[in-house]
Amino acid sequence: MFRTENEFVRWLQRLPQYPGRRVRLGIGDDAALVQVARGNELILTTDMSLEDVHFRRRLHPPRSVGHRALARSLSDIAAMGGIPRYVLVSLAISRQTTRAWVEDFYRGMLALAKRYGVVVIGGDAAVVPGRTMIDVVVAGEIPRGKALRRAGAQPGDQLWVSGRLGLSALGLRVLKSRAGRRATEAAEAIQVHLYPEPQCALGRFLSERRLASALMDLSDGLSTDLARLCEASGVGARLWAERIPGPRIDDPDESLRLALHGGEDYQLLFTLPPSKASHIPSRFRGLPLHQIGEIQEPKGLLLVGRHGKLRPLEPAGWDHFQK
Amino acid sequence: MFRTENEFVRWLQRLPQYPGRRVRLGIGDDAALVQVARGNELILTTDMSLEDVHFRRRLHPPRSVGHRALARSLSDIAAMGGIPRYVLVSLAISRQTTRAWVEDFYRGMLALAKRYGVVVIGGDAAVVPGRTMIDVVVAGEIPRGKALRRAGAQPGDQLWVSGRLGLSALGLRVLKSRAGRRATEAAEAIQVHLYPEPQCALGRFLSERRLASALMDLSDGLSTDLARLCEASGVGARLWAERIPGPRIDDPDESLRLALHGGEDYQLLFTLPPSKASHIPSRFRGLPLHQIGEIQEPKGLLLVGRHGKLRPLEPAGWDHFQK
Repeated sequence: MFRTENEFVRWLQRLPQYPGRRVRLGIGDDAALVQVARGNELILTTDMSLEDVHFRRRLHPPRSVGHRALARSLSDIAAMGGIPRYVLVSLAISRQTTRAWVEDFYRGMLALAKRYGVVVIGGDAAVVPGRTMIDVVVAGEIPRGKALRRAGAQPGDQLWVSGRLGLSALGLRVLKSRAGRRATEAAEAIQVHLYPEPQCALGRFLSERRLASALMDLSDGLSTDLARLCEASGVGARLWAERIPGPRIDDPDESLRLALHGGEDYQLLFTLPPSKASHIPSRFRGLPLHQIGEIQEPKGLLLVGRHGKLRPLEPAGWDHFQK
Repeated sequence: MFRTENEFVRWLQRLPQYPGRRVRLGIGDDAALVQVARGNELILTTDMSLEDVHFRRRLHPPRSVGHRALARSLSDIAAMGGIPRYVLVSLAISRQTTRAWVEDFYRGMLALAKRYGVVVIGGDAAVVPGRTMIDVVVAGEIPRGKALRRAGAQPGDQLWVSGRLGLSALGLRVLKSRAGRRATEAAEAIQVHLYPEPQCALGRFLSERRLASALMDLSDGLSTDLARLCEASGVGARLWAERIPGPRIDDPDESLRLALHGGEDYQLLFTLPPSKASHIPSRFRGLPLHQIGEIQEPKGLLLVGRHGKLRPLEPAGWDHFQK
């Protein structure tokens, strides 16, 4: 491990990084200093990654832990339609952790940061007796008035998702079972679980062109997150089971369960007024977009099954106060 | 404890708060949205408060934990000379924690927030198997170019501190010993330890009038923090033991040790070009200000003892990688 806080900070300062725009003061002082472009609003978000909750030392290599810790917060910026800019990392490092682990953690985080044009400008660090805990703050920008919220969905709006859902949950299951990793779908699922891609470009596309009436990211599972979007908008939704893009596995019921309730996909969920639907491509930069349902006035979620059978859908994704 | 994340978030949203200026979107969406005034730069800082590192359940009431968690970050904004505005709180709550503890934690934090005109606009929460961990982000503002850094001290500058140092360390000692709490100094020390005041008004005074050449807050102890200021500025310093304002206890050597190495005082340490010294009052809004030494060219710290005897001063405050 690093011998002193100063040694750690100096090591951090030397890491190669994306040359952040408008950073006036980065790592090493009491606080960081940045400029916000005129006419822009500031987006702030923070997400924790906790050992034995969000990651397990046995399953997640440190590069993946660093990648995922940042991806969670980048995805929140995507979910507002904003542009991520600056990162602060708080790291409570378990005493059992090696310096090599910390270095690989930052390598994973900074590789992702570079691709998304964000720069780590500060944070906090401590060595602790218990489990490792990470908290990642991302500050982003968006032109005034353009941010997309969870509230805003109207009855009659179309409900869309990006990508395929449930892959991350499947990937975690494969990692835990240590079996069947050879299958193509398993390999893809593991990749999605360990190195998820936040959908910042899509979020920006939806906000810049004012296409979506509501937008959020899928972090806790479709059933749970859609319930939140509907609650914020004061509406309900009807989902078509056959249109929900789940993992390509043999058991269609299990694929649907993973897609509905598996978390950590970091895809985007958005609603569209029908008049805007023609502006949505079937693929955005290679990422498939799917209409999976529609917003309706009666509260609650309804799932339309394969033979047109309706059943109520309860939120059964991740809840940090229940698990 | 709260039964679900939604229940917790709704409880948070109903808490009475300072009506934050220019908050466009607060708690409950994917991220928070604020405006930064034209001509201002944004200050970002984050500080962790970890159970069994920064606080102990046995010694620190939850109101104090909430107060101190926010005070740490407010003090970092003070240390830049800025104005704090917005707060994000990440809270990993130990499973052993009661709902009453969490409520009192927020009461303590929000009472301080109100007095400093800051508003909690977001965060993250989870219930965890291990110890409670808190990470508090504060975003502040400062007119462009006015921020005061650790770098900037010049040989010949005067070295000043606000308030009295070592009180927090003394307070912790008294709390641990559960003895001698009746003495006036002990009561004050406990108060300073449990409910420290960040010195935002003084920081702003120093930055607005461009008085200080370097500024930082004292969180890890004078000997450690001064070494950091000197390293950032590429200078050394000479301290006069008799001028360092320590706790008023019977043993003068122990008082000096507490003042030099005791952490968590959250007073300000600043350097002044001699030409600016006449602008510094002996008290700022009731807070005493003391010149305790001077900056010199040779690196390292020297302590001038009571009889003019010189000895080198090694950093012996708090280091999160060593303790």
